[in-house]
Amino acid sequence: MDPGPILIVGGGPSGLAAAQALAGLGQRAILVEKESRLGGAPILSGYAKLVPSGEWARDAIGGMVSRVERDPLVTVHKGCTVAEFSGQPGDFRATLSNGTKIPAGAAILCTGFTHFDSVNKPEWGFGTFPDVVTTTQVEQMISSGKGVRCPSDGRKPQRVAILLCVGSRDRQIGREWCSKICCTVSCNLAMEIREELPDCHVYIYYMDIRTFGLYETKYYWTSQEEFKVKYIKARIAEVTSNGEKLIVKGEDTLVKRPITIPFDMVVHAIGMDPNVDNKSIAKIFGIALQEQGFIGKASAYASLGETSRAGVFVAGAATGPETIDDSIAQGKAAAVAALAVANRAAASAVPA
Amino acid sequence: MDPGPILIVGGGPSGLAAAQALAGLGQRAILVEKESRLGGAPILSGYAKLVPSGEWARDAIGGMVSRVERDPLVTVHKGCTVAEFSGQPGDFRATLSNGTKIPAGAAILCTGFTHFDSVNKPEWGFGTFPDVVTTTQVEQMISSGKGVRCPSDGRKPQRVAILLCVGSRDRQIGREWCSKICCTVSCNLAMEIREELPDCHVYIYYMDIRTFGLYETKYYWTSQEEFKVKYIKARIAEVTSNGEKLIVKGEDTLVKRPITIPFDMVVHAIGMDPNVDNKSIAKIFGIALQEQGFIGKASAYASLGETSRAGVFVAGAATGPETIDDSIAQGKAAAVAALAVANRAAASAVPA
Repeated sequence: MDPGPILIVGGGPSGLAAAQALAGLGQRAILVEKESRLGGAPILSGYAKLVPSGEWARDAIGGMVSRVERDPLVTVHKGCTVAEFSGQPGDFRATLSNGTKIPAGAAILCTGFTHFDSVNKPEWGFGTFPDVVTTTQVEQMISSGKGVRCPSDGRKPQRVAILLCVGSRDRQIGREWCSKICCTVSCNLAMEIREELPDCHVYIYYMDIRTFGLYETKYYWTSQEEFKVKYIKARIAEVTSNGEKLIVKGEDTLVKRPITIPFDMVVHAIGMDPNVDNKSIAKIFGIALQEQGFIGKASAYASLGETSRAGVFVAGAATGPETIDDSIAQGKAAAVAALAVANRAAASAVPA
Repeated sequence: MDPGPILIVGGGPSGLAAAQALAGLGQRAILVEKESRLGGAPILSGYAKLVPSGEWARDAIGGMVSRVERDPLVTVHKGCTVAEFSGQPGDFRATLSNGTKIPAGAAILCTGFTHFDSVNKPEWGFGTFPDVVTTTQVEQMISSGKGVRCPSDGRKPQRVAILLCVGSRDRQIGREWCSKICCTVSCNLAMEIREELPDCHVYIYYMDIRTFGLYETKYYWTSQEEFKVKYIKARIAEVTSNGEKLIVKGEDTLVKRPITIPFDMVVHAIGMDPNVDNKSIAKIFGIALQEQGFIGKASAYASLGETSRAGVFVAGAATGPETIDDSIAQGKAAAVAALAVANRAAASAVPA
């Protein structure tokens, strides 16, 4: 018996990977994306060169989008959401916000994250000083081809500070988790700034440098030794202005001394929040969230990718901060698990 | 046309996951393991409770082993290796070291890593003092049910130091990479020691704490706040003995002062080296290694899991330090990719 198509919610890296994996196995998939374009954060937020592949987002993720959009086994619904979801493995029924009704053998939630909004960390100057920007804005400066410029007057910055852990590891604002990839993304951005503006000094303010695994050499050491990026272990107090320069004040935690350094541009390395829609997604799909608001996933290895509801799977940054390559692997792994469940349910179904 | 079975080399978490994924899709797999038992490092090295699932290795990975061993679609060859490998996608032929010849549509290398051997860091006391042990040895003390005891005389330690980055982030000994999961594993072990021996003081000596993503709260903060594990940011100089206690000497890099602390047991958090067999594996399969010796993998997202040879894939810690859950996801993702390649090759083959 045909298990019916697999429903995938969210068209970012993990959702695209799940769709491609299913189509590659000859299985139909229906991909529902709330935005008007596929691609998720790397495309919608205009990322530049991605970590860890080094490819331009528009080529790498854009390529995944084109392949999914022209695959005859994948039906894409953009600009709409899943409004209702009921049934059981092998026999789910979803109603989209545009009224379309679709059957599904299983579902995979690839609903991603929401970037931390820096206005929630006002003492670090975002929203007050125009030259305090986010990593996403710097990505856009690079990917647009305009280059890294101070928003206030368009000049090339001579001194840039990247502040790590903005919206991460910060109990004061209810975000205890680490966003996993911002350290590495920031090392990468620092090198890109140094490449474009060789006279610009780039400092990274950190608590711990978390360039885990092989990123240690590729990003951390290369940024220091080849690109002369400077690292300061510090606790930031505030970002102010003396009318001409931005002033980053804090304490150097290695020498236990206050440090006050002027910059032209300050970059917030913003973290990953749970998707702002997660409460609604949890209600519609009847699944549990983790306490921070990310989608709950099984911790047991035998049931990796499962949510609290049988036949509904989850992959990528929907479950917590995640890298793009692991999101892709998880999307494919969830596709295999979803297809196996749908096939089993279909095989055991009694024909009406 | 039948693409033939998929050859999987290595029976650790990623290989087991790949085999299960293929079997779940109705596809035959042949799993070749050089040791006499399946399970990889978690089983062969006798790990206790695993990070991040919290399951006992014997239950979680042991369960994967049983399911693979009784799956009729998976043929397991233990105690042998692949001696010869030739052909092309859809039509590979392998000869095992026991003489068995097998056809394969594609291959997946899940050949894992080798634990760093602490005798290569002699100034930190391993091999000289019996109460200097490795994280693997502590895992074995816990998983055997014997509990954490000083090897020299069997007493319960009152003070334990865990030294991070032994064989990681260490240029002096040619290992620049970070081993990704030892910080989190060490936080977990520290809590297990405190749980078994509530009167024992446990210190973790670190360079950076890399409990990335959601591990920040689950391991780092919980170990400090609930389990009172103490963290010292330090550069270790040497581990010696005063005849009664082990003495850890170093510099506290936060206060820039020398620190000398006595302990009953010192634990090396050993890193992940490339599998010692990688040169031979690379030669037999005709694939490229990375400069550190891990198996080379495509960085482009569209070809994740591919090696330098078409039809030969790679997953898990064979490519660099990796967590168990990501190894499992990568194993399943490689299974999908390998099956798609083998199917395509079989479909386009001209019948003889």
